[in-house]
Amino acid sequence: MSIVVALSKSERRTRIMDFAVEEAKFRNEKLIIVHSLFGGSRTSEEEITEGESLLKWAEEKAKAEGIDVETHLLVRGKEAGDDIIDFIREVKPKMVIVGVRRRSPTGKVIFGSVPQKIILNSDVPVVSIR
Amino acid sequence: MSIVVALSKSERRTRIMDFAVEEAKFRNEKLIIVHSLFGGSRTSEEEITEGESLLKWAEEKAKAEGIDVETHLLVRGKEAGDDIIDFIREVKPKMVIVGVRRRSPTGKVIFGSVPQKIILNSDVPVVSIR
Repeated sequence: MSIVVALSKSERRTRIMDFAVEEAKFRNEKLIIVHSLFGGSRTSEEEITEGESLLKWAEEKAKAEGIDVETHLLVRGKEAGDDIIDFIREVKPKMVIVGVRRRSPTGKVIFGSVPQKIILNSDVPVVSIR
Repeated sequence: MSIVVALSKSERRTRIMDFAVEEAKFRNEKLIIVHSLFGGSRTSEEEITEGESLLKWAEEKAKAEGIDVETHLLVRGKEAGDDIIDFIREVKPKMVIVGVRRRSPTGKVIFGSVPQKIILNSDVPVVSIR
């Protein structure tokens, strides 16, 4: 089986990956790291480059710890929450790991809408890292 | 260390306890099961009896699987979300397990406000079971 990590450009990405690597080691599972973008006119070249470099960073972090890892940049014309829920249904992992804290434009800590959607709709347990 | 389970009268209680027992076995950790009520004039005798019987049910389920378990009915004049966050800060578990789905009065599936508060404020990973 596997552990899916839904990764975004959050300031918490290191905290999330550290936990994911620890769990993958402990459970002896492969990590599947995903980042979702809508695509077409709603996604810039810059967002794609940033997504690729985020996944590259995460892949290297996992490999350095000897973890079996694959990454997927999902660009399928779907909202991120729906896209990741569909991905989870396809992959059937043991669990999903998400970051939950976002900053609003005024700097307030809020509960991201993408993790909310994943938590409420995933068929497998979702581990939230704040 | 330990795993804290924030349990409520949810229809998902069996699913939540099954996962908690599996994790406690896998990680060789004790289960600490909590149910929070405000107390005073805001809590009825019936709610206390129901809380006690919920915890009794969960304790027996864990013991039947050979899991080390303790239960706490928290009645400390605090809103459930704040109460459980304070409890987590006191106990410092490895992780927390919560159920997330509630039914609104019209039958719609909604994200419970107590799990939302726990997920957004817990210092340790929170596993959501829907």
